[in-house]
Amino acid sequence: MSENGPDMWRASVLTLFPDAFPGILGQSIIGTAEKNRIWGLETVDIRDFAANKHRNVDDTPAGGGPGMVIKPDIAAAAIDSVAQMGRPIIYMTPRGTPLTQKRVKELAAGPGVIVFCGRFEGLDQRVIEARQMEEISIGDFVLAGGEVATMAMLEACVRLLPGVLGDASSADEESFEDGLLEYPLYTRPREWENRKIPEVLLSGDHKKIAAWQQTQKEVITKARRPDLYKAYKAKGDGHEHD
Amino acid sequence: MSENGPDMWRASVLTLFPDAFPGILGQSIIGTAEKNRIWGLETVDIRDFAANKHRNVDDTPAGGGPGMVIKPDIAAAAIDSVAQMGRPIIYMTPRGTPLTQKRVKELAAGPGVIVFCGRFEGLDQRVIEARQMEEISIGDFVLAGGEVATMAMLEACVRLLPGVLGDASSADEESFEDGLLEYPLYTRPREWENRKIPEVLLSGDHKKIAAWQQTQKEVITKARRPDLYKAYKAKGDGHEHD
Repeated sequence: MSENGPDMWRASVLTLFPDAFPGILGQSIIGTAEKNRIWGLETVDIRDFAANKHRNVDDTPAGGGPGMVIKPDIAAAAIDSVAQMGRPIIYMTPRGTPLTQKRVKELAAGPGVIVFCGRFEGLDQRVIEARQMEEISIGDFVLAGGEVATMAMLEACVRLLPGVLGDASSADEESFEDGLLEYPLYTRPREWENRKIPEVLLSGDHKKIAAWQQTQKEVITKARRPDLYKAYKAKGDGHEHD
Repeated sequence: MSENGPDMWRASVLTLFPDAFPGILGQSIIGTAEKNRIWGLETVDIRDFAANKHRNVDDTPAGGGPGMVIKPDIAAAAIDSVAQMGRPIIYMTPRGTPLTQKRVKELAAGPGVIVFCGRFEGLDQRVIEARQMEEISIGDFVLAGGEVATMAMLEACVRLLPGVLGDASSADEESFEDGLLEYPLYTRPREWENRKIPEVLLSGDHKKIAAWQQTQKEVITKARRPDLYKAYKAKGDGHEHD
């Protein structure tokens, strides 16, 4: 955990597995950015707010059913222990709104996030409402808890903070920036296992290369993600082949 | 890394950040399952296959553009170093097919996975084709590398392996199991911050409770995920209110 600088992007993570952090967030450009105080990570152990000596944080679901539910009083106490400072309180859950690069950008442009990592069956609905938590999902699959989803969201945000990506233009030419998937990439050697780099990429003709890349993006997006392609076409900014 | 048992679900992860593993996958029910040899994790450092003494694995993109691309010969050497044993070779990338619970189940039912974690701008397209890699995305956002996405996929798979979830029925009543999001959860206390558990859940009338939960699932899915709701209605198995 770093000391906080005044303009640092602050992430507070509430979890039953505080030892899992920073984990991979302590490595690569994300870890370097934390050392450089571009962002700061605070972890809060939800179990510290358990009322009994067994440190239980969960109880059986009202109405029956399998598993356990995190108690509203304990979750709220953990949330309230963290200074909000205008930050959204996020709950990672498959029931949430799917995370998009657009939302990632908005979060990265703000003061930071408070993230509650669910475990067991989930969190009592009343805390979600009372603390106006934003429910976010990273995808249509189920995890054992919110920790990995939190890491994904934080990594996506932190890499967009000023000074984190080495090459400033890297973030502009990537997937979703224009609503399309990225074009295929090639590097040396020119020929590998009888497979060649497409001629156009070696032509030095920047206009032709850009046109090829744009076509590839559209073809790949249309084939793999008709949903994104439809939205792209509807936006009407298809500057095709030029 | 555990020794391999004969019927263990095997994950081989190729990464430039081997120290990031197991990370959180070494904790909770996922870590316990690894200790119990229900699954095994092998990490391979891609850099070990670099040809030069600087251990470079990347080169500039053909046709220009920002960032670096992982070289096909090095990536292929790393992949080929791992025994395939009928396992799919997966490449985590935002260009991939979105991961779904359905695909998670299929992967969990198989012998395991080989996962290549991308970094920099990405991987040379020729390796993806030559090694018939399956491109999977965990969502429409961009990460600094494939490691967190890999953790998400592995966690989702491992929790479905026999013997991992404590309560066998837990996996049957969760989000996406019937194409709908999960109903809201409540637990004690009965009243908290002037918010009460919905009466029906305390009624003891199991039929009424089930009907309420089903309605909630449909209402929430319709509001938050019209895409899922539409698919659910199209399937025509809306056993509403019963």
